[in-house]
Amino acid sequence: MSFLKEISPLVRNHYLSRKDVLSRRAAQITAEIQQGKRRNYNEVLELSSGDLHRGGIKPITFVRQVLAACFYPALLEDDSLPLDVKQRAESLLRECDGGSVGSYTESSGITKIKHCVSQFITRRDGGVPSSPDDIFIQSGSQTALMNMLKLLMRSEDSCRTGVLIPVPTYASFTLALEEEGAAIIPYHLCEEQGWTLQVEELRRALQAARKTCNPIALYICNPGNPTGHLQSRTSIEEVIRFAADEGLFILADEVYQSCVYGDDTEFYSYKKVLSEMGSNISSTVELASFNSVSKGFMGECGFRGGYVELVNLDSAVMKYAHTLFSTRSCPSVVGQLALDLMADPPKPGDSSFPTFSEEVQFIEHTIRKNIGRIQEVFAELPGISCQTLKAGFFVFPSLHFPPKAIKWAKKKQMEPDMLYCLHLLEETGVHVRPGCEYGQRNDSHHIRLFLGTQEDIMEDALQRLKTFHTRFMKEFS
Amino acid sequence: MSFLKEISPLVRNHYLSRKDVLSRRAAQITAEIQQGKRRNYNEVLELSSGDLHRGGIKPITFVRQVLAACFYPALLEDDSLPLDVKQRAESLLRECDGGSVGSYTESSGITKIKHCVSQFITRRDGGVPSSPDDIFIQSGSQTALMNMLKLLMRSEDSCRTGVLIPVPTYASFTLALEEEGAAIIPYHLCEEQGWTLQVEELRRALQAARKTCNPIALYICNPGNPTGHLQSRTSIEEVIRFAADEGLFILADEVYQSCVYGDDTEFYSYKKVLSEMGSNISSTVELASFNSVSKGFMGECGFRGGYVELVNLDSAVMKYAHTLFSTRSCPSVVGQLALDLMADPPKPGDSSFPTFSEEVQFIEHTIRKNIGRIQEVFAELPGISCQTLKAGFFVFPSLHFPPKAIKWAKKKQMEPDMLYCLHLLEETGVHVRPGCEYGQRNDSHHIRLFLGTQEDIMEDALQRLKTFHTRFMKEFS
Repeated sequence: MSFLKEISPLVRNHYLSRKDVLSRRAAQITAEIQQGKRRNYNEVLELSSGDLHRGGIKPITFVRQVLAACFYPALLEDDSLPLDVKQRAESLLRECDGGSVGSYTESSGITKIKHCVSQFITRRDGGVPSSPDDIFIQSGSQTALMNMLKLLMRSEDSCRTGVLIPVPTYASFTLALEEEGAAIIPYHLCEEQGWTLQVEELRRALQAARKTCNPIALYICNPGNPTGHLQSRTSIEEVIRFAADEGLFILADEVYQSCVYGDDTEFYSYKKVLSEMGSNISSTVELASFNSVSKGFMGECGFRGGYVELVNLDSAVMKYAHTLFSTRSCPSVVGQLALDLMADPPKPGDSSFPTFSEEVQFIEHTIRKNIGRIQEVFAELPGISCQTLKAGFFVFPSLHFPPKAIKWAKKKQMEPDMLYCLHLLEETGVHVRPGCEYGQRNDSHHIRLFLGTQEDIMEDALQRLKTFHTRFMKEFS
Repeated sequence: MSFLKEISPLVRNHYLSRKDVLSRRAAQITAEIQQGKRRNYNEVLELSSGDLHRGGIKPITFVRQVLAACFYPALLEDDSLPLDVKQRAESLLRECDGGSVGSYTESSGITKIKHCVSQFITRRDGGVPSSPDDIFIQSGSQTALMNMLKLLMRSEDSCRTGVLIPVPTYASFTLALEEEGAAIIPYHLCEEQGWTLQVEELRRALQAARKTCNPIALYICNPGNPTGHLQSRTSIEEVIRFAADEGLFILADEVYQSCVYGDDTEFYSYKKVLSEMGSNISSTVELASFNSVSKGFMGECGFRGGYVELVNLDSAVMKYAHTLFSTRSCPSVVGQLALDLMADPPKPGDSSFPTFSEEVQFIEHTIRKNIGRIQEVFAELPGISCQTLKAGFFVFPSLHFPPKAIKWAKKKQMEPDMLYCLHLLEETGVHVRPGCEYGQRNDSHHIRLFLGTQEDIMEDALQRLKTFHTRFMKEFS
């Protein structure tokens, strides 16, 4: 009685993620080293995922102290915890049924935390109002995004529902779209101009897609993953105007909003820019904006805390959104608590503030230092070039392979950047991701490196990469 | 630009859950009392959801101490924490990348914890082997169940995919099936015989459904929610044989497996019973079994920790399962850690054991006491009858309304048990759920009460219910 034929065709279409090959090999090598197998290196250096703590960055003490006290309230009697930690833990526990973080909460999140998030958004956007009723806390921004997709999909249409997505973009979102049965409409970011989003390209992609599907939503990742670009205010206005003209719902993935490095650069949220456009636009364009505790200074990926804010949705549709989001069990409580701490961190005068601000500055300093070193090292290397990095957690340099290397990859039936990454891992223990995983223009090749790694690990990784890259380019020239 | 017409028809079909009316009213009343509004009662008594901590039961100290130390490892230096707590926290932190519970994990869960869970299953089933490769940790058993549904659904069929589900069953699963576009095939549990599952009824339901959909799976909830029944070994064997004959995939929701109260009753897992049947059955019937940290003595609903174990799946299908489960971000790390603590609790000799076993015994004692009191009170009341409770977190008594009450409800355009629950809440502050939410035979009516409540709260609730019920029955007789 084989079940194979019973598998949902949507699931069957999933290509077995290329990530697995590399990640599995990395795990294997680590295990072999632990079992005593000798290699040229002592450990695998992880620049593969956007995970600060994995990269050796320490968690924020304030966050962890509050959570420890919430989980084990006997610590509230402990003299070693700062006053503001205890006060915050007490105030959060008052919002939990039975005073326990183990209780279910409202399925859209604890009301007080939704208030806290909406105040954070209002401050971020310089006063643009935000209502807790429009905020839905979820177990991570990815879960929120997938639930929004569910709301947008129309399976009964003869024509598939289409969603515009950038190329490159991270693979798990593409997989989620496939899983929901959406038609993927790729639009290319313009690498030559710093991975900018160009409206003419959106228009081209949309027009081509209209022949085969029913495009209803435009997905934006700003700041960009893997590209590290940051949209200007003008660019955002243009995109919003385009969405208004074409009747598209905007899905704005803004999880890297607090990671901005350029000197004269600033993050503008889609919501803020939208709110300042003419009322025929500001009160009509439908927008969902996503944020998370996984990115930014907290880096608490394992907690699964994120939210979506919905803007300009028809009140009847909001009812459906409430219903959809409330059929799920509540989001992870620890993720919710972390959102509260992200949205309302220690302020000057609070006992935790000095340590907190030192820790945040240290993380920012580390990332800036890493960016500087990456640029220095890449500048010396042949066949690798990189757009100016403005924001986000990743750098996505272009690799210019000699024709011989491309031929070799073809023979191995592999994407050239995948082959490069596999050999880099095998020979030096440096684990980065290949551009083919994110999508890229034909005949262009990239790698993605994570920026949030301890300085000494980054230095070690760059030296290993430099040696490997130089040999690789020489071998195939 | 209204988005209304764009809503997925699957989502649109969701009825706005009846739960909302009652829950919203309960929240409103609580808020009014807090604002000083006077009522006959000082607080709403929550017997509505299956949430131990909300019911005033204290969390298990060992669990919370280990988690606090994992969140804030400085506590490992603290003399007040028991040795086994520190050792467990250290061993768990070793499994987290960068030694942080804030890092992403494998998307199917931390390998060591999957090992721990598989050992727990093997012990539970008296030695039947279990492999960590067949275990997928998820953010709660509900998420695992929904992912399994996704795997089973076949949207491209002309005929909808059907799933057999019990009546009564809890509403969120029914909603999840609707959301996935499944055809729901109800089979009735036999109340008169203690809510037993009868194979003739399964057969009747299946044959009727074959005309309109393509039935592929049979969902079982054992021990039952809301019914509190426990399947005998023989009953499980019959169901498995039926599934084998009919080529059905078994979805066994066994989250209440540790909550068994009858004296001569024992929980048998579907996996164990299956493993002991003839090899033509034991090696072919496909099974997914679900478990969770939300139920049982831990009651940590807010952590979102659960798992599914897959049995007899074709290896090609397992590959798809891996792919599907791995497109998601990792499950909540705190839920994963809690699973480890559930699967491998303190043992005699460990420093935490005495407190741990006292706490677990206290919870069991409380629930047994509550069951006893419920039976005593119901025995005195007219128009209410209850099957012997064997297991689970709920009691689901039948209400026999006088014809006048039914007429009144019809006039109000409400289900009689819903109207009963609303008035019970309004007049006495006792919050229980109406049977109509779970499905029931025409002209039968029920309420669902949660058993895991502090004894004094339960006593207070029963006295209020008694007064209300007596008046209600008199008024309408």
